[in-house]
Amino acid sequence: MNLKAFIRDIDNFPQEGVIFKDITPLLADAKAMQYTLDRLLEMVGDVKIDKVVGMESRGFFFAPLLAQRLNAGFIPVRKPGKLPAEKTSQTYDLEYGTDTLEIHSDAILTGEKILVHDDVLATGGTAKATCDLIKRLGGEIVQCNFLIELDFLKGRSKLGETDVKALLNY
Amino acid sequence: MNLKAFIRDIDNFPQEGVIFKDITPLLADAKAMQYTLDRLLEMVGDVKIDKVVGMESRGFFFAPLLAQRLNAGFIPVRKPGKLPAEKTSQTYDLEYGTDTLEIHSDAILTGEKILVHDDVLATGGTAKATCDLIKRLGGEIVQCNFLIELDFLKGRSKLGETDVKALLNY
Repeated sequence: MNLKAFIRDIDNFPQEGVIFKDITPLLADAKAMQYTLDRLLEMVGDVKIDKVVGMESRGFFFAPLLAQRLNAGFIPVRKPGKLPAEKTSQTYDLEYGTDTLEIHSDAILTGEKILVHDDVLATGGTAKATCDLIKRLGGEIVQCNFLIELDFLKGRSKLGETDVKALLNY
Repeated sequence: MNLKAFIRDIDNFPQEGVIFKDITPLLADAKAMQYTLDRLLEMVGDVKIDKVVGMESRGFFFAPLLAQRLNAGFIPVRKPGKLPAEKTSQTYDLEYGTDTLEIHSDAILTGEKILVHDDVLATGGTAKATCDLIKRLGGEIVQCNFLIELDFLKGRSKLGETDVKALLNY
């Protein structure tokens, strides 16, 4: 199945000069979604995963599906002020300014095997901050798993020795 | 399985006087999540569903799982400015002020059978606005499906003749 046919380019979103990869046509098609899920799982392979961490908001589309198929728990990493219980925070640099992500401090136990999933690997700032949060809680990152990688932004260079896999490259 | 044991009360979140139902312990437990998904599907029953609509952000946790099991597409309803393509918007009243939800205008075709899912039915404002968006696009709402219903807020009274089902009532 040619998954790229289900992803549409939106010019100048969310800002001038950016071409946004809109995955909503893929999500709206049951067969394309099933096919995507199966391929994302193949990237993970036959390893034990305790928790799948997904990033707000588009990481939430596939991360719970991956968790269910891997018989793992699902952990959301969220923007500030959204998680209600005791949290651990990580601030990271953007092109202009900074942003912050949060995880519940009891979400991951020491030594748990973690799969990180997001829809798009762009500059890698979100993924790096998420990995830092997981490591601070004692989790061991098995893979950073993406639907899409924007190669020209070189995001994987921020993720060091971590196994980084993407289904679709642009 | 006693699912309420996986939901924790957080006092005074997101504001003073509110007791927030935190479902993240349930999401973190693979067995509890699987059990929840199976029960949510039982509420839907054996009917044809074309699309499952989930509301940002906590509706995104189970809506794609429901879509996959029902062999349906998944459609996100989002807060303003998040969806990149041509949109339909619905503004609704809050206790103080208003809020707006958006859906892609091509997300639903006339006559499609729609399952609406969110984590919590509270005052019903979000659910009502979502139903209004779906009807404007020509969709037929089969059920509004919730993990939790806060009975004392009487949200289902806003949803008219729609079939409203919740797994856990408080």
